[in-house]
Amino acid sequence: MRTLGDMGEKAAVQMILQLMGGRGAIGPGDDCAAVDQGDRYLLLTTDMLSENTHFPQGMRRRDMGWMAAAVNLSDIAAMGGRAYGILMAVGAPRALPEYCAKRIIQGAMDCCDACGAEYLGGDLKEKEELTLSGMAVGVVRKDGILLRRGAKPGDRIGVLGEVGKAGLGLLQWERSEFDQGARDALVRPWPMLKEGALLSASGVVRSCMDSSDGLGDCLHSIASSSGVAMEMIWENVPIYAPLLEEMMERPEPKRIAGMGGDYGLVFTFDPAGENTLRRMLGDGFHPIGTVHEGKGVRVAANGKKKVLERSGYEHFKS
Amino acid sequence: MRTLGDMGEKAAVQMILQLMGGRGAIGPGDDCAAVDQGDRYLLLTTDMLSENTHFPQGMRRRDMGWMAAAVNLSDIAAMGGRAYGILMAVGAPRALPEYCAKRIIQGAMDCCDACGAEYLGGDLKEKEELTLSGMAVGVVRKDGILLRRGAKPGDRIGVLGEVGKAGLGLLQWERSEFDQGARDALVRPWPMLKEGALLSASGVVRSCMDSSDGLGDCLHSIASSSGVAMEMIWENVPIYAPLLEEMMERPEPKRIAGMGGDYGLVFTFDPAGENTLRRMLGDGFHPIGTVHEGKGVRVAANGKKKVLERSGYEHFKS
Repeated sequence: MRTLGDMGEKAAVQMILQLMGGRGAIGPGDDCAAVDQGDRYLLLTTDMLSENTHFPQGMRRRDMGWMAAAVNLSDIAAMGGRAYGILMAVGAPRALPEYCAKRIIQGAMDCCDACGAEYLGGDLKEKEELTLSGMAVGVVRKDGILLRRGAKPGDRIGVLGEVGKAGLGLLQWERSEFDQGARDALVRPWPMLKEGALLSASGVVRSCMDSSDGLGDCLHSIASSSGVAMEMIWENVPIYAPLLEEMMERPEPKRIAGMGGDYGLVFTFDPAGENTLRRMLGDGFHPIGTVHEGKGVRVAANGKKKVLERSGYEHFKS
Repeated sequence: MRTLGDMGEKAAVQMILQLMGGRGAIGPGDDCAAVDQGDRYLLLTTDMLSENTHFPQGMRRRDMGWMAAAVNLSDIAAMGGRAYGILMAVGAPRALPEYCAKRIIQGAMDCCDACGAEYLGGDLKEKEELTLSGMAVGVVRKDGILLRRGAKPGDRIGVLGEVGKAGLGLLQWERSEFDQGARDALVRPWPMLKEGALLSASGVVRSCMDSSDGLGDCLHSIASSSGVAMEMIWENVPIYAPLLEEMMERPEPKRIAGMGGDYGLVFTFDPAGENTLRRMLGDGFHPIGTVHEGKGVRVAANGKKKVLERSGYEHFKS
């Protein structure tokens, strides 16, 4: 009898998509589900975080609330949407002090306030393990929706946000000395709503997703959703500099590309639009490779090309 | 240090509403949150169900999925809305067999299909305790939204759906002989979307909510949200007949009014509209009392009036 543990998250999600069949014309398998509302799509997403699995031990309550809001808002950003706001269902143990509950909610509100989104409400239930199940809702113009499946051979690959920043935060989590920027990236991820809306408005972006499960996972997901191959030039990837200092030996691309938690945006675009994007996005924008016919992901490092295997964090297996 | 257990669910929810302050002009504290979309409101709601707390032991997986969809869709019904669909975040243990996961999702899809709503997507995460966090989304015309806070002195109180049906299902849960209708009401609640839309369209309904936490809880919530007193005539309440047969002694109104799980609709309406409602709703419609100046809930039984204290199921306390 095959269990979820035997299957792993990716296969289990595929199983659900299969069950869904033709349901939901756009959306299933992407960062958000999309509902047709005439000239726009309503974007909906949900993400459940649990104390034992998702929150580094000792993480502050206020950051937990922030994170639950941020990871959901990031999915709206990845589709190019404008966020209305979030709802959050909180499962909390009976013994949780009132001030802790307050801080969790306050953290989610902080994130909404910072992003111009609204904390719309939620649910509160008793539960042994602290569980925050957030959902975000937003809208996007129909012709501006960004999907994983839009990449075309000839596109260039772009990245917004430094790679491995949250990964360094996790490596240093239990130390007394740590990089504050990395720690913030880990526990207070920033949903790139403004940038996602710019990508959508640019008219030159053909696919997009957020890098919550790592850069490698992104490239693999866009490649398989779009039926293309992705090739990145490792020297062009904006790796967070203190991460390279931290790692004693020169790390394999695979290791860094497998670090999750960054919530940057990874996208492909029409090469003719590169200057437009550079103007719109400024220094944060990094072209890191190209899209080709075929499948899979390759990485060119020191002039040598290698296949980059899939290695992002996977629930039920990792 | 006050804990959630010391406070109970109602006080904890009040604490969250206070934190929210002016956020979300309409919605907070009601069945759904409402987002302004021009001539209509977008309705959003979320409800988290956990195996140990919400599902009677031995409940079938497929019914769990149904229930997670239904309780959320019922909140859309209670606001008079048309449902787009649901998302469901599933937290599941690694050892859960694939076929069980399939049945859960299938159950949620069954409910959506039966209600003309769509299963839009979700999230799948590893978690010790099986947890289904659903959210529903819908729309309602601005002038047709049904809130808890609209009741006025002089209104009559109406009920759709039999009272205590799911309560009987729970009483008989572990028996080998049971009432199938009651068991179905408990594990496959029916979201009254069609009826909610009729109440909204009637133009004579002034307040509404679903009776998930029991009839008594509904009346108390509408009374306190609207700043009015509610008075029901016990003889007019459509109690599920087999429940009365089941109970050995004549039950106190408080006991039956405290039974949750029914997912009927409780509402108040302009008395001039009673015939309209009767025509629209048919036999399922029961006027059970009247709204007055003042506060609290009274029940008249055998010609005697008594105060009905609040006694619905309360998380963290019960």
